Amino acid sequence: MKYTPFSIVLIVIVILISCVNKVKPVHSTTGPAYGLIFPKGERILNDNFKGAAYLYPMVSADSLNPSDIGNVTFDPGARTRWHIHPAGQILLAIEGTGYYQEKGKVRTLFRKGDVIRCPPDVPHWHGASVDSGFVQIAITGRQKGPTIWLEHVTDEEYHSSEK
Amino acid sequence: MKYTPFSIVLIVIVILISCVNKVKPVHSTTGPAYGLIFPKGERILNDNFKGAAYLYPMVSADSLNPSDIGNVTFDPGARTRWHIHPAGQILLAIEGTGYYQEKGKVRTLFRKGDVIRCPPDVPHWHGASVDSGFVQIAITGRQKGPTIWLEHVTDEEYHSSEK
Repeated sequence: MKYTPFSIVLIVIVILISCVNKVKPVHSTTGPAYGLIFPKGERILNDNFKGAAYLYPMVSADSLNPSDIGNVTFDPGARTRWHIHPAGQILLAIEGTGYYQEKGKVRTLFRKGDVIRCPPDVPHWHGASVDSGFVQIAITGRQKGPTIWLEHVTDEEYHSSEK
Repeated sequence: MKYTPFSIVLIVIVILISCVNKVKPVHSTTGPAYGLIFPKGERILNDNFKGAAYLYPMVSADSLNPSDIGNVTFDPGARTRWHIHPAGQILLAIEGTGYYQEKGKVRTLFRKGDVIRCPPDVPHWHGASVDSGFVQIAITGRQKGPTIWLEHVTDEEYHSSEK
């Protein structure tokens, strides 16, 4: 039995459609619809973030636990202001690619699977890279008071090259 | 032009191979090769775990930070002993399906995206479900001393039904 080119094209299309529907890419790092583990939460509306960022609070600090824990999603280009954590912060990158910079140091890449310890009282900022969304778990010590927010990250600082 | 069945089978095989190579399933929850965010780390060899479990330490507690943070992977069926955390523990499920149980309560499912706070001084256990691997981030307060390990979870307890 022989097949015409048209019927072959039809078979190929059917196969490709079922391929696409069965699996999903591991990385979907543009726009907000990343490979989510935790809910994205609510859009952060205060002026401490530039661009679109979202917070899903997971654990609040209390007498038994000293740390707030939250899932923070940054759309491409979004970032925090420069800021300080009096008791430090630990960041776990769980999706996409971001940036991290401490005052006086170069901006570094912050990729899915990376872990960063932000030291207490050191000004720093973090967010998504220019062309990728980014999701982090933030574990923030609250035993020495709230975050101290500083100036916005300039475009020049944001786009500074990594050494 | 017409094609024989043999050449069509060949074309289909080539297309399917390129489908498989371009994308990966989001969930690979059997065996150890899950959709990893953090490295799996080393196999845990002590007697505090039953079945195959792996630890990737991420942050150690010190004078600035009160918590150990680690990525723990359980193969299907693997679990901890009953144990106590004097300063409590926070668990973030990031892959697969597991179980969690506190003494005197029923065993509950613990799924990717769930967050559990293990209270201080409450005996509990956790691990993978019987047919799925499981990956958790464990944030363990060390300010009141190390984990206290108790008896192994019996097969009856492990397989007890969730209400």
